[in-house]
Amino acid sequence: MSKPRRHVLVCTNTRPPGNPKGSCGEKGAEALFEALKSLAREQGLQDVMVNRTNCLKHCSRGIAVVVQPDDVWYGGVKAEDVSELCADHLREGRALERLLMPDIPWE
Amino acid sequence: MSKPRRHVLVCTNTRPPGNPKGSCGEKGAEALFEALKSLAREQGLQDVMVNRTNCLKHCSRGIAVVVQPDDVWYGGVKAEDVSELCADHLREGRALERLLMPDIPWE
Repeated sequence: MSKPRRHVLVCTNTRPPGNPKGSCGEKGAEALFEALKSLAREQGLQDVMVNRTNCLKHCSRGIAVVVQPDDVWYGGVKAEDVSELCADHLREGRALERLLMPDIPWE
Repeated sequence: MSKPRRHVLVCTNTRPPGNPKGSCGEKGAEALFEALKSLAREQGLQDVMVNRTNCLKHCSRGIAVVVQPDDVWYGGVKAEDVSELCADHLREGRALERLLMPDIPWE
């Protein structure tokens, strides 16, 4: 298996404090990345790969998370969403409607 | 537009010198990332997003590059492949057969 069945990308970009855009890093993206990776491993989702990325261009809607190749982009993801994200999307393949990124331009 | 038409992920993970796996970082992944981003911009591919990631788990086959949501994984990508990758895959949507990652386990 060269590719994961689901490839999760977490923006962990951090801007300096006071930057008007804000950033995913400031909102706890690094912890979210670690939590997603750990939970996927704990739940035996061996075909899920979780990576951190630099800026996914939705700073004010962070934390931004993408699930590929499903092409599902999430915004405003918080630590408390990790378990639902794992159970619904990563295990069952059902995208979480309530977290979908609105159709807005990149920042 | 909240999502790119094509989302390019470049592994820029760097392991310490002498690590038996090697790493994409050691093979020039940071320069490749910058070159891909610049060329996509120069060529007006405004619906292409290029990001760097941590380890994509194909260290010995680096530089690893992924194009989503096409779910195409490339290995052994070099600086000299950037222009063909942009022209064929990112602009025209034709994957480069010669660079496809073989079907091997994650490292």
